[in-house]
Amino acid sequence: MKENVFLRSPAAERLYAGVKDLPIIDFHCHLSPEELYLDRPFENIGEMWLSGDHYKWRLMREAGIDERLITGDAPWEEKFEAYAGCVELAVGNPLYHWTALELERYFGVTEPLTAENARGIYERVGERIRETRLSPRKCVEMMNVEYVCTTDDPADDLVWHRRFEDDRRAGRNPLPARIAPAFRADNVANIRRKGYGEYIERLGRTAGVEIRSLHDLEEALCRRLDDFCALGCRFADVGVEGLPSAECSSERAGEIFESAVAGRYEAGMPEEDYSAWLGYIYRFLAGEYAARGMVSQLHFAAKRNPRTALFESFGPDAGTDCASGAVSPSVLADFLDSCERGAGLPETIVYTLEPSNAAALASAAFSFPRVKMGAAWWFHDTLGGIARQLETVAEAGYLAAFPGMLTDSRSFLSYPRHDFYRRIAASVLGEWIERGEAEEAACVKVMRRICYDNAAKMAFGK
Amino acid sequence: MKENVFLRSPAAERLYAGVKDLPIIDFHCHLSPEELYLDRPFENIGEMWLSGDHYKWRLMREAGIDERLITGDAPWEEKFEAYAGCVELAVGNPLYHWTALELERYFGVTEPLTAENARGIYERVGERIRETRLSPRKCVEMMNVEYVCTTDDPADDLVWHRRFEDDRRAGRNPLPARIAPAFRADNVANIRRKGYGEYIERLGRTAGVEIRSLHDLEEALCRRLDDFCALGCRFADVGVEGLPSAECSSERAGEIFESAVAGRYEAGMPEEDYSAWLGYIYRFLAGEYAARGMVSQLHFAAKRNPRTALFESFGPDAGTDCASGAVSPSVLADFLDSCERGAGLPETIVYTLEPSNAAALASAAFSFPRVKMGAAWWFHDTLGGIARQLETVAEAGYLAAFPGMLTDSRSFLSYPRHDFYRRIAASVLGEWIERGEAEEAACVKVMRRICYDNAAKMAFGK
Amino acid sequence: MKENVFLRSPAAERLYAGVKDLPIIDFHCHLSPEELYLDRPFENIGEMWLSGDHYKWRLMREAGIDERLITGDAPWEEKFEAYAGCVELAVGNPLYHWTALELERYFGVTEPLTAENARGIYERVGERIRETRLSPRKCVEMMNVEYVCTTDDPADDLVWHRRFEDDRRAGRNPLPARIAPAFRADNVANIRRKGYGEYIERLGRTAGVEIRSLHDLEEALCRRLDDFCALGCRFADVGVEGLPSAECSSERAGEIFESAVAGRYEAGMPEEDYSAWLGYIYRFLAGEYAARGMVSQLHFAAKRNPRTALFESFGPDAGTDCASGAVSPSVLADFLDSCERGAGLPETIVYTLEPSNAAALASAAFSFPRVKMGAAWWFHDTLGGIARQLETVAEAGYLAAFPGMLTDSRSFLSYPRHDFYRRIAASVLGEWIERGEAEEAACVKVMRRICYDNAAKMAFGK
Repeated sequence: MKENVFLRSPAAERLYAGVKDLPIIDFHCHLSPEELYLDRPFENIGEMWLSGDHYKWRLMREAGIDERLITGDAPWEEKFEAYAGCVELAVGNPLYHWTALELERYFGVTEPLTAENARGIYERVGERIRETRLSPRKCVEMMNVEYVCTTDDPADDLVWHRRFEDDRRAGRNPLPARIAPAFRADNVANIRRKGYGEYIERLGRTAGVEIRSLHDLEEALCRRLDDFCALGCRFADVGVEGLPSAECSSERAGEIFESAVAGRYEAGMPEEDYSAWLGYIYRFLAGEYAARGMVSQLHFAAKRNPRTALFESFGPDAGTDCASGAVSPSVLADFLDSCERGAGLPETIVYTLEPSNAAALASAAFSFPRVKMGAAWWFHDTLGGIARQLETVAEAGYLAAFPGMLTDSRSFLSYPRHDFYRRIAASVLGEWIERGEAEEAACVKVMRRICYDNAAKMAFGK
Repeated sequence: MKENVFLRSPAAERLYAGVKDLPIIDFHCHLSPEELYLDRPFENIGEMWLSGDHYKWRLMREAGIDERLITGDAPWEEKFEAYAGCVELAVGNPLYHWTALELERYFGVTEPLTAENARGIYERVGERIRETRLSPRKCVEMMNVEYVCTTDDPADDLVWHRRFEDDRRAGRNPLPARIAPAFRADNVANIRRKGYGEYIERLGRTAGVEIRSLHDLEEALCRRLDDFCALGCRFADVGVEGLPSAECSSERAGEIFESAVAGRYEAGMPEEDYSAWLGYIYRFLAGEYAARGMVSQLHFAAKRNPRTALFESFGPDAGTDCASGAVSPSVLADFLDSCERGAGLPETIVYTLEPSNAAALASAAFSFPRVKMGAAWWFHDTLGGIARQLETVAEAGYLAAFPGMLTDSRSFLSYPRHDFYRRIAASVLGEWIERGEAEEAACVKVMRRICYDNAAKMAFGK
Repeated sequence: MKENVFLRSPAAERLYAGVKDLPIIDFHCHLSPEELYLDRPFENIGEMWLSGDHYKWRLMREAGIDERLITGDAPWEEKFEAYAGCVELAVGNPLYHWTALELERYFGVTEPLTAENARGIYERVGERIRETRLSPRKCVEMMNVEYVCTTDDPADDLVWHRRFEDDRRAGRNPLPARIAPAFRADNVANIRRKGYGEYIERLGRTAGVEIRSLHDLEEALCRRLDDFCALGCRFADVGVEGLPSAECSSERAGEIFESAVAGRYEAGMPEEDYSAWLGYIYRFLAGEYAARGMVSQLHFAAKRNPRTALFESFGPDAGTDCASGAVSPSVLADFLDSCERGAGLPETIVYTLEPSNAAALASAAFSFPRVKMGAAWWFHDTLGGIARQLETVAEAGYLAAFPGMLTDSRSFLSYPRHDFYRRIAASVLGEWIERGEAEEAACVKVMRRICYDNAAKMAFGK
């Protein structure tokens, strides 16, 4: 791919030139703070790419590749070769673009990866990895990352984040980027899953609270929130298949919680109780986030592990997750309103895995000044998806307030996605300039905001 | 913006040249007939733009501007300056385009509005307003408007419309455009809102019918419809959050109506009764519209006043309305069919605030020859939204029968939206010509129909 | 239209050159095997185009043409003229494109059809039809069709398919294309429609099984499936308004089936029983298709005969069918998973008449390696619709595995739609090449797969 790839006009090139060297604020990712702290060097590109990347596994399955070469026991080199033959023809898919960008940006490989040159590239990249002793921190440093926000469980003792913080306070900054945790409340909310009682016990131990009631749970959550914030936490997020429309008193929520923890829902929790519980706990958390000036992220419409066969043999994050169905803008508006009327509505960012109703969702989000639509998410973090999301936000709202890009990734090689986003944004706005539909001076300012300023404000406070 | 802005090809420029001087038929707007009749001169652009335009308020809130500068007590000049600083960066938003078009078309201001030049432009435009004694009628005349259809309540005595009509009959036409009322039945349909009984009483007084039963209500509605038609009314419309799927007998509808008026639904009307009522009254009205040769407009999927805080402090139309959720094409088809099987299906235009399923809705609408899809509505009346709607209608139906543009606006400065639409339509059809996918002669004919002829036929009869 | 119409770039022209002469695999259509076998010459273009094409009827109704000229008793020449005047202005509609392509490809008419030249073209084309003794088989041969898969009822005795097969085995191949039946199970699934009991009796007679129980039905279906497969059947399909979410035991399904056949659902079958039945029978059929290596096609979200007036006067397929509403990706994923956990998940292709959630449906489909998204269907088989579907599949999945085009048509003149598709695909991929976003070598390979190889593999096995 050429240097100006994804820059579709001279105006796009000019806009991009103004943002390409800005640092990266990655305010939502799934990197491991442990790996980042321990910083063990990588060994080969096969393991780096194929040991945990469910995007790639999914594509390989669609291409008809045998599971042995995907999550099975084949050697890394064979897996890499299988992936190369598959991605070679994946035109139009983000993996096609990411693969090229990652090979070029981290390893200087400029030819397209194919079945034919796979072995050669595997060797060359491997040598480079070993020569440079490429490691998690080096991946982060190479890409000029200023802020990394990982995703952490409320029951997590944040040991690695504490070490980063201790080092930072002692002036022994191990890398230029600030590392901070995010408060990911899924395990608290998902009251129906197996082992919920054990989870709550573990949460209590970490928080130093014996959790016997809803009140205790709230106490524990508040302590953990304070612990997170003490380590620089500014963001929360949660995965929400569908938003609950019900409101629910704390009395009823307490009964549901205690029944769940005590295992009294033997036949499964009725949908009504589950929805009431979610309505309660989401609103409670929103109030606590608001009180601490945190940014709440809502990730809508993901369905987890729909393919039982693979879930049973492999477990979660196998590459079978998919969209569930559109969240209603009406239900979103009611939820945001009830937070605002209740304990408080924090600054909120909405993401959806079902983008067809993004414009309608945006109309509901933008009825509340503190609520934003987030970047195109997961399957929609594509050349077309990113452009459509920017256009939707610009048409329905105020693009200059868009929070900007995040990797949402488990891979230390995914930072070129920020560059991908900046190029696409430059092309979207550049087209408006070329057509005489927007002033270039305005677009230059907007680009800077949506590529850096807005995210930096959230990450570092005002 | 240059003279050929939004005209994306030479063919677009040619197509536009053929329609730019056609008069405007504004068959759906929210202008005040009183203001239009009284014709008091305006004073400044701050008040003209910011005293009631909830589009602008909404954008300003998203940009983080303080409510004092939006709907508060700040002076007009300060509000204007705040808006200028916000719209300067609103690239991609229709307000960015409209603001430029309105400044240029009404006031000859050709530079883009910015925070920096806001004070200067405020002064210059103010002088122009006072020099030209710009007034509601002058705004309408300047833009070559031939027909203005306001939006009127069935209980409205239409006093201003009667004055226009009296003047017209007496040969004292106050302005070249014909002014006519539209029959907006929301207050009749929304049986659950507070004050419904008082409203029905008021409707009865205007109609000269004491309304004690559903039969009386129908009598009153028919009288009012006749009054409206005597003043040139050709259009009805109604806002429909979701279409009712239930049919309902007149006996049951009568019971529900009488209970509502008598205040017997103390605990709130059950969803089932409400839906049955809507099913009845919408079908009744459809039959009466059909009998009078009127055009019925259905506005789908708007949710009103979702933000309680602002509704309580400010009231309705504060700029918080949003999409509710998609109306099912299956339910639309069933509704249209039951009208056709029942008292009659009038010529009908469907609008939706949730455009994601516009293609599916179009397929249902176009199964009924008298039913059309309307122009992109409200949040979707944008550069992209207008183009997408035209493409959807062309693909799913017969673009040559498209009813065309309307302002749907409360502002006397919104007529350039017709020009905006014509330019976008010229670009959509022009692109087909440039690519060799459509004959220019055909496109010239279609442009004329969708920019003037089809609307004129509806407004003035055949 | 020029030779390079729909080819939007030089790269598109090069890609198209590589696929334009590939044979056509039409793996889903509604051609009559009887007409194809008997091969009676056609008489005039009016009858060929307007005797059964509900796409054209629908457009004519929207254009306000009288029913007499649509499905009434007007002479073919008059109907043709009315259609000409209507399609002349149908810019942006697929009928506009198809009409031009069909006139040019079959009859050498290169000028656009208009009201003015309609009579002349009617005569010229008529002469050509009579001179060449144009017939069903000639239409198929002219277009280089290699495989035609018709759509056949399980109760059909397949007499015409048997004649084709007998001829083929005797070395008397009447035309170069292979003709095969598809197993269309709608009449088995639609247990609520009138005459279900009689249908089941007829199915039993054809199968040689007296059907008294669900077990008997399954026996009859298996026998018919074996009969179909013996005649080369590789494909099944079914129209599904909405997918059932319920699973259902064979005991309960048996009770529902026996009650339906015995006419014991006098007041209509409850929605719950219907859904349970569909859940059972769809999964049963999926298992049988999987066992035979067949490809199952699911056609989602079509609503049949919504306009009662026309259904009563004319019957089905009158041109009033429309979209029902989106099928939930979550429900699709659950259905596919339950098939996989149960009797088996065959290779499956998903089509939807509500394309707004195509990306979300694709995410669910692509969670299962054997499941593909199919070509843009029916109202969406348009210039824009085909391009969007290819882009959606490329972004969400693996375009190289896309099954490709089918006509889904009742008309022997519809084969240029394959050429239409190839041109659009060439333009979509060509744009990526022109922008430097995809390698041309990869696109050449993908084009061949999605224009021929993938369909040929399904049609002829591996």
